[in-house]
Amino acid sequence: MGIKLKDIGEINLIKHLQNTIHYTHPSIIVGIGDDAAVIKNSFNKYLVATTDTLVENVHFNLKTFNPYQVGWKSAASNLSDIAAMGAQPKYLLVSMGIPENLTLSFWDEIYRGIRELSSNYEACIIGGNTVRSTKLFINITLLGEVEKDNYIKRKGATIGEKLIVTGYLGDSWAGFNILENSININKKAKEFLINKHLLPQPRINEGLIISKNKIASCMIDISDGLSNELYRLKEENKIGFKVFEEKIPCSPALKIFSQKKNINLTEIALSGGEDYELLFTCKENKLKILQDAKIDFFVIGETISENEVIILNKKGDSRIIKKSGYEHFKNNY
Amino acid sequence: MGIKLKDIGEINLIKHLQNTIHYTHPSIIVGIGDDAAVIKNSFNKYLVATTDTLVENVHFNLKTFNPYQVGWKSAASNLSDIAAMGAQPKYLLVSMGIPENLTLSFWDEIYRGIRELSSNYEACIIGGNTVRSTKLFINITLLGEVEKDNYIKRKGATIGEKLIVTGYLGDSWAGFNILENSININKKAKEFLINKHLLPQPRINEGLIISKNKIASCMIDISDGLSNELYRLKEENKIGFKVFEEKIPCSPALKIFSQKKNINLTEIALSGGEDYELLFTCKENKLKILQDAKIDFFVIGETISENEVIILNKKGDSRIIKKSGYEHFKNNY
Repeated sequence: MGIKLKDIGEINLIKHLQNTIHYTHPSIIVGIGDDAAVIKNSFNKYLVATTDTLVENVHFNLKTFNPYQVGWKSAASNLSDIAAMGAQPKYLLVSMGIPENLTLSFWDEIYRGIRELSSNYEACIIGGNTVRSTKLFINITLLGEVEKDNYIKRKGATIGEKLIVTGYLGDSWAGFNILENSININKKAKEFLINKHLLPQPRINEGLIISKNKIASCMIDISDGLSNELYRLKEENKIGFKVFEEKIPCSPALKIFSQKKNINLTEIALSGGEDYELLFTCKENKLKILQDAKIDFFVIGETISENEVIILNKKGDSRIIKKSGYEHFKNNY
Repeated sequence: MGIKLKDIGEINLIKHLQNTIHYTHPSIIVGIGDDAAVIKNSFNKYLVATTDTLVENVHFNLKTFNPYQVGWKSAASNLSDIAAMGAQPKYLLVSMGIPENLTLSFWDEIYRGIRELSSNYEACIIGGNTVRSTKLFINITLLGEVEKDNYIKRKGATIGEKLIVTGYLGDSWAGFNILENSININKKAKEFLINKHLLPQPRINEGLIISKNKIASCMIDISDGLSNELYRLKEENKIGFKVFEEKIPCSPALKIFSQKKNINLTEIALSGGEDYELLFTCKENKLKILQDAKIDFFVIGETISENEVIILNKKGDSRIIKKSGYEHFKNNY
């Protein structure tokens, strides 16, 4: 029978793959295992490359997503990976698997979603392919560029640094929950949360400010929930994290949702995926630069020498944060 | 209802897409509509990028393909696109959709197929992702490099040039036919044809020799059959082609197959896809360089001013070559 892929954790799968691949080009600066690969390109610029796939009924369904939103979200997840490297997105290659009875206007709407979001960041489609498939899928490869000294890896944190996130967590998960189960809360809160799920905003500009000012010692984007990303950073950096519960940024809409549904707010913020915020560590003396840059940021914790991920509530009680089950067989490397 | 994607020809789909995309970067030298995109990279080098997807039960099935061969063929179709630009392949990003009960060893075998073929040409996997999907699919994005004055487009042919192909045509289609229907011919011929279908060899070295020596005025790879590729070049170049039937290279094994099956040899060579040979035009005075380079090449015809694709038999009788039906909704751009 052999080991099933679904029974292998992401970290093990990546380690397994890394063991089989030997980099023959000295130009490969960062290979498999980060948000994107980094390639020595020219004298002072590095090329950054990432790829991600959304599959119908796995990552979205067409009852709740229109094709424009499918396109937008496909672009967003790739843009977010480029943001996490501190790079400027530039070129997209779009591959689609399409059920054969689909209309041209549906296909157009997917492309429009991809194009509108990526053109906000001056990224442009340069190629692709469309093939027949029973289920719809969209794969995007995104190429970006970064000054050679400015790219930011998942590795690089040291003990005693600040842990920072660029925005509200948990909203996308709440939006997904509302779309699937509906809920009786005020329209504005509902729309806010649904919008965060369907049309997420990658943090390209924030990533660029962080990289140009050499603020972060390590960075990752939060696609699979804060707790999972913290465990990834822990694994990479061989350090631990202390998170202050009351510092985790949650939107007013999420608070309404959490009360109505009687689901713990912190749990949603820790486990809910697809918010595409950036999570990074930096020395305390860099915070001033962030303030001056006028971007959103929230100091939620610190790096610690103990190799564990803990959360402290207001009273100072601590507990270990569990890895979330959100990963659902969606492995990027 | 709207227009169905399956009812739109490839050329129309690409034209339609080109109309919606506006290139904002002056660095984009070749965008959508060629075998690969070309990007200004550094002072003297251009980046070349292509992407292609194989879907289970559309482009292969697991009764006839083992996972190693699926991986190999996925890499081959992308490598062939890079070969057609005259570029050196360098970096692969591999995205897979995998049924969740698939084993790790199956996944490993796909990767081994990709790795073994691409490492023959010093190309190396730098990233990817694996997602859940009901049907298996493999998408590869391949990045390559070419000297800035050496890349070869589909456009550039002039009247009175030679039309050249780098190897036997039709073998892959015959191999596919044998796998699907079986046939009673000698084992060696059968294995040769099946092997050409399962483990095609992209013409990277030939493409590099052709580009470095500035031999070709235009080039394309034959993935959808000679007739379709000739129509693509006709469309791009606004010229026609005259093909000499007896000059089309067919393997001894294909001749045996053709006789046994009573299928016209020329028809197989014109319509059969996935041979991944290069098709190019060049001035007659370049033929000497090709001879000296000791690569396989066959002069099969000429470019003509009449805007049509014709074939001449031994007696000198001519007929118009029809577009083949092979395209089957697999559009690369």
